Amino acid sequence: MTALADLKQRLECVTDLGGAQAVLGWDQETYMPSGGVEARSHQLATLARLGHELFTDPEVGDLLARAAEETVDLDADSDDARLLSVVRRDYDRATRLPADLVAALTRVSAQAQHAWKDARQRSQFNLFAPHLEEILLLVREKADAFGYDDGGCRYDALLDEYEPDMKTAEVATIFTDLRKELVPIVHAIGGRPSPNAAILRQTFNEQAQWDFGLSVIGDFGYDFTRGRQDRSAHPFSTSFSVNDCRITTRVQPDYLPSCLFGTLHEAGHAMYEQGVDPALERTVLASGTSLGIHESQSRLWENLVGRSRGFWQHYFAPLQSAFPQQLATVELETFYRAINRVEPSLIRVEADEVTYNLHIMLRFELERALLDGELAVEDLPAEWNERSEAYLGLRPGSDAEGALQDIHWSFGAIGYFPTYALGNLISTQLWQAAKADLGDLDEQIAQGSFGELRGWLRDKIHRHGRKLTATELLQRATGEGLRADSWLAYVRSKFGEIYDL
Amino acid sequence: MTALADLKQRLECVTDLGGAQAVLGWDQETYMPSGGVEARSHQLATLARLGHELFTDPEVGDLLARAAEETVDLDADSDDARLLSVVRRDYDRATRLPADLVAALTRVSAQAQHAWKDARQRSQFNLFAPHLEEILLLVREKADAFGYDDGGCRYDALLDEYEPDMKTAEVATIFTDLRKELVPIVHAIGGRPSPNAAILRQTFNEQAQWDFGLSVIGDFGYDFTRGRQDRSAHPFSTSFSVNDCRITTRVQPDYLPSCLFGTLHEAGHAMYEQGVDPALERTVLASGTSLGIHESQSRLWENLVGRSRGFWQHYFAPLQSAFPQQLATVELETFYRAINRVEPSLIRVEADEVTYNLHIMLRFELERALLDGELAVEDLPAEWNERSEAYLGLRPGSDAEGALQDIHWSFGAIGYFPTYALGNLISTQLWQAAKADLGDLDEQIAQGSFGELRGWLRDKIHRHGRKLTATELLQRATGEGLRADSWLAYVRSKFGEIYDL
Repeated sequence: MTALADLKQRLECVTDLGGAQAVLGWDQETYMPSGGVEARSHQLATLARLGHELFTDPEVGDLLARAAEETVDLDADSDDARLLSVVRRDYDRATRLPADLVAALTRVSAQAQHAWKDARQRSQFNLFAPHLEEILLLVREKADAFGYDDGGCRYDALLDEYEPDMKTAEVATIFTDLRKELVPIVHAIGGRPSPNAAILRQTFNEQAQWDFGLSVIGDFGYDFTRGRQDRSAHPFSTSFSVNDCRITTRVQPDYLPSCLFGTLHEAGHAMYEQGVDPALERTVLASGTSLGIHESQSRLWENLVGRSRGFWQHYFAPLQSAFPQQLATVELETFYRAINRVEPSLIRVEADEVTYNLHIMLRFELERALLDGELAVEDLPAEWNERSEAYLGLRPGSDAEGALQDIHWSFGAIGYFPTYALGNLISTQLWQAAKADLGDLDEQIAQGSFGELRGWLRDKIHRHGRKLTATELLQRATGEGLRADSWLAYVRSKFGEIYDL
Repeated sequence: MTALADLKQRLECVTDLGGAQAVLGWDQETYMPSGGVEARSHQLATLARLGHELFTDPEVGDLLARAAEETVDLDADSDDARLLSVVRRDYDRATRLPADLVAALTRVSAQAQHAWKDARQRSQFNLFAPHLEEILLLVREKADAFGYDDGGCRYDALLDEYEPDMKTAEVATIFTDLRKELVPIVHAIGGRPSPNAAILRQTFNEQAQWDFGLSVIGDFGYDFTRGRQDRSAHPFSTSFSVNDCRITTRVQPDYLPSCLFGTLHEAGHAMYEQGVDPALERTVLASGTSLGIHESQSRLWENLVGRSRGFWQHYFAPLQSAFPQQLATVELETFYRAINRVEPSLIRVEADEVTYNLHIMLRFELERALLDGELAVEDLPAEWNERSEAYLGLRPGSDAEGALQDIHWSFGAIGYFPTYALGNLISTQLWQAAKADLGDLDEQIAQGSFGELRGWLRDKIHRHGRKLTATELLQRATGEGLRADSWLAYVRSKFGEIYDL
């Protein structure tokens, strides 16, 4: 057996363990009875530990080196060459973390999550503060263990986990430009009359909401023979293989957008995973390449398709049929404006398309300052509130509405937030390129026809899995790097029209 | 760390892998989309292989020997002493099987199951015969690898997997006695007018069937905070820990007993697992001790409770309320007789309480003859049909109704069938003992009060997990060994009254 073949076989086993973990995680959030919590955490920890041990075995390092020699003449874009380069990257990262640090991070973040829940419930940041201090100490250690390029910064090492190869400086530049343009837009919108969104807050039959969402994502091309939708407290997507990519959503009987747009969003994530080249199945390449690219897919289907006027030219009549009592007398335009209402709010997960990125920038700036020690943990709530007022024009009335609102920092996920905004930017860059390639994309959507768009995304993004980085995908699909102007142009055009700016 | 503590820690990991496998198996039968099949089989195989490797590691053998020395003074009934003896048993069995044989069994039985499905569908035994030949060769090898006592037989080694310490000779003696008594009873019943069961074959709303079953097992004491019920093609129970024991059932809109008695049966299994002493959690002792004891629990709740007159004195009114159109004018006695109708049939899984054991005896005799080479595979269908006529008075019209009806042999499960009948016998032995201890058990049930019965079963059976063998449990709970007269007396009394014998 060649070293490459031997390596692949070992990695299949690691992939299987990852798939099993995902199944257990899915069950935990969907069907598991409350009594199952403790055993499940043991099972997940054991699977994670075994997977880590198998992957970081020095023999894997040897095989990796020998396989690289065997394949030195391979085309750099071939599956095998790409596989080896991604495995090398993963292996280096996995082996750089000392076992003690991994254990400490697991222990401290379990306690911190618990403390965060309690602190948020009571809206007392001081209950969470000592845990965040500990998290920051360990995350700094982790960043230093991973390392970063000369001229780079510690945050690079963390960002790299979620958005491989993306640099902090690049994100910071783009965000700074974006904020300069965006704050005045939000301000201008705030000065205009707001659409009435009361029609979205009637009582909508839960099963009818569920069925409508499913019918739309079926039209999108989400493959129900290789996936399914279930309920959970927080919507998510997960995949156990290229052929089993599931989504969850929640249904609010008194607020129509929650289930519908949650469904479209998660289906966007899952179609990405379903679209990975089957030849990559059971390898580390068989999943999305970065959180930013992933979010670009969910946002594209949720917003660029699902909140577009063309989409509703096709789907508003079926929606009215599903909810005649609530919507029969509502005008399409009234509905379109209601689902696109812009209103600065304190809570990120409730933010509209325009203000969402401002929430992200605030977090990006604050977590960098925390990491670098420029901002003391005790000063975080005040600083949060300051920036919230500056960017969104709103000051949190409590810590729960401010620095305690998101769970991410409590489990040590620093470097994660920016990927949400990158996803938004990438989604419009891809959209422009798809439009250029496909011509009448808007008309296709207005006819409920998504096959060409899905095919384009599969060809440019999905099928590559982790073979190409976000930067490579974007460059090949659009001919350019990451930039904010495409998204800004989209926002100006769409919301300029709605708000008559 | 002591050797015992080290051993326990290693075994926790094996237990976690087993729990994870069970979750993946449950998902496979309940929610997994069809596309997920291939990846799931890889994931399950990887978990099984890793669990086997971890468990059969020679270091486990060393620790086991050292732990035995450390604990030589322990009370033989203590958790630790029992743990070591069960682990020793499992370890010896697991290490006696050569890896090549395990691999061959896995490969051959996968092919055989596939062939069996096809053969059954076409009702052509000859399509399955060569696979069964192969299975028998390997199963003989397996039995010889496990070994058996002097004076015992090869079948002992197989039976031991499902019913530890039970001997073939003992089962054969009991079955022979049982058959002699049972065949005349079945014959006598056949000579009497049969109750009309048409009322069970109306259209019953599926959700109402489901809800009624859940309400009954809630009354039984099945703990929904540590379990749940889902749908599957074939009902089963499974457990991921003492605190997550799930059941599944199926619902036939045109046949009431299917969902109802399936639910009670599986809840009986699951309450056994839920009742294991929490101190045994995450050890090999935290599950049912044998298939026979397991089946005694499911049969007890399904038949001795759920098909009793007293039970329906309490539950028939609620059932009528759930299905007024179908049952409002039906007499309790008519219903009671309908659900207890005895009718010899060709298919085991459709058999009534009285004839069921005859199906088992037939299989027990045939699989022993096959194993010993006394019966050639090619002669199996004819021999099956002969015995079917002799025991049940019915001759299969096709192989699908005869030797091809059960899946068990196709995956190498020889030695499994007798445990179904043992469960029936044990259920009435336990019932008699519970009645003697609890006094007015029938009246409690007629009042829908199951707490004392459940408490008795938990105390005598459930809490011990695998600490005690079936024989020990039975001896301690009833003061006697396995015997058939208790079950025969129950059948004579109950069905003698119904059929006026």
